Formats: sequence, structure tokens, C-alpha cells
Amino acid sequence: MLGKDYAGQDCGLARALEVVGERWTLLILRDAFYGVQRFNDFATHLDLPRAVLTERLRTLVDAGLLERHPDPEHRGRALYRLTADGRSLWPALHALMRWGADRTGDGRPMRTHRHVACGTELEPGGTCPTCAVRVPLEDIETEKVSAPVPPVDPVTAALRAPRRMLTPLDA
Amino acid sequence: MLGKDYAGQDCGLARALEVVGERWTLLILRDAFYGVQRFNDFATHLDLPRAVLTERLRTLVDAGLLERHPDPEHRGRALYRLTADGRSLWPALHALMRWGADRTGDGRPMRTHRHVACGTELEPGGTCPTCAVRVPLEDIETEKVSAPVPPVDPVTAALRAPRRMLTPLDA
Repeated sequence: MLGKDYAGQDCGLARALEVVGERWTLLILRDAFYGVQRFNDFATHLDLPRAVLTERLRTLVDAGLLERHPDPEHRGRALYRLTADGRSLWPALHALMRWGADRTGDGRPMRTHRHVACGTELEPGGTCPTCAVRVPLEDIETEKVSAPVPPVDPVTAALRAPRRMLTPLDA
Repeated sequence: MLGKDYAGQDCGLARALEVVGERWTLLILRDAFYGVQRFNDFATHLDLPRAVLTERLRTLVDAGLLERHPDPEHRGRALYRLTADGRSLWPALHALMRWGADRTGDGRPMRTHRHVACGTELEPGGTCPTCAVRVPLEDIETEKVSAPVPPVDPVTAALRAPRRMLTPLDA
């Protein structure tokens, strides 16, 4: 089997992929940007084996991209929140998401990311073309715009509606 | 085993990862941006099993990111060149590379990507902060700046020196 590291590749891309290159990892982080914090919500939305989710979350915590906090509503369970290091991945994740959406279908975005202050869709690089600023995560509103495919699970339904980035899912 | 697609994830990121999310694929594309075109040069630089490289190149050609051209110097062999679709991945790949380099070591970049016109290092989003333009690939000069680790193979050595993006390795 192919291993997880790229020891011979002295390159920032290889270092990035060692942390976020495993299958499902970037989709877990995407959900964290949208406010998913609970193991069960990740599991519901991503529909991946729970053992894989457990392993990926542990890797992300060990790498310092997610932090475990006690869940005030569920004794003994954790909330997983992005660290500053994790948040710094947003420009790359957004650029990859835009590239994937641009290649798919009719050119309509699958999900919008708008600058709350002016309502403008962000450029792939994460700047607002109207205000010419790099928009902080807290000032981005995201909304699903591709055709709904009912029935959906509760997490998917919640993530369809307009919401501020990083707003906890149950808030 | 985990499959290759993310059928339940209606999202640009999932669509992107279905094309470029497999192990080694982004590093193959990185090399293509730096001018690597020949199977043997990819194999030398990446040091990955030839069967894996063959499969990844085939996937990238099928996805329309790379194109096969006859190699004028080696009858029966191919040159792999980025298509317009493949080139459009650059902003995402560059952002991910910068993120990985920023997390590693002493904050010094591992490789620079400069705007040829003014010599300024590009921002993670791919714009030149001096000229305030998104720099086309052909106007980017890249150079390895992290400490050399001899001995290196000929492809690695060639890719260390300053070079224009997309310039064929043997040119």
C-alpha cells in the first residue's frame, strides 16, 4: 500500500498533503468551517465509517487543526473546533472547492460564499471584488444553491440555509 | 476500503477531490506546472511505483487535466502537458502549497513563486501584491530556496534552479 507521508518531497504541497491529503479529511474540515462540531453531525452529514471519522478527527487534533472542547449539552462528548492553524486553510480549501464547482455542471456555483457587508460572491482567492479586501471567515455567509435532492438528513438541511461561517450548527 | 468518489457530497470540493484527491495526484500536477512532461522524469522525481504513476497519469488524461503528445525525442513515448483545465487548478494548488510551507519549519518559504515583471513573491491567492494583478502562469518564475540535500537526482537538480512555470524540463 502507499503510505501516508511523502518523505522524499521537500515541498510545501507535500507537507500539506501529509496533514490534509487523506481521504475525507478536507470534507471534514469543510464541515467544520460551516459550523459542524459534533462527531454525530459529521457522521450524519458525511456518511463515512465511524472508525474512519474517529481516526481522521484524532489526526486533525494531533496536527493542531482542530481542538476538542467539552460539549456542554452531552456529558463526556466533545465539540471539535477549528484552531487558528485550521482556519488558515480556508483560502486553499475555498480555491479547490471553486475549481471543482467550476468544472461541474452548468457553471452555476453549487454553494455561494458572500461578503456579508456587501453581498458580493468572493473570488476564488478569497477576496471580495467589490470591497477589495480579503474577507475574514466571520464575515462570510455561505448558502447552498444547487438543486435540492430530498430527502436529506437534518445536518444537510441545516447546512443548506444561509449561515455565517464558523457559526456552531446548533446555535 | 474507502472508494474513490464522494457520491453523497453535493459540493465542489467533493467533485475536485474525485479528480485530484488521490494520493500523489497533486504532486504529479505540481511537477507538470514546473515543466516535467516525461513519464521517466515524473518517476525519477516522485520516486513512486511506476504502476501507480501510470494509473494516475491515465486518470488525469481521462479527466482532461493532462494531454498526451508524441515525444519527438523518444519514438513511441508521450509527453504529458497541462490542458487549460489543468492549468486552472494553479490557484488552489499554490494556496495549498503555501499553507503547507507556512506550517513547516522557520517560516522561510521552501520555494518561491515570483512575478517575473517585478520580482515580487506572489500572495497565496496568486496575485502580485506590487502590481495588483493575478499573474499568468507564464509570468511566474519559481525557485527552490530550502536547504539543498545532496545527492539529488537530475530532475530534482533541474527543478531547484530558477525557471519559468510550464517551461519543458529539457528545453
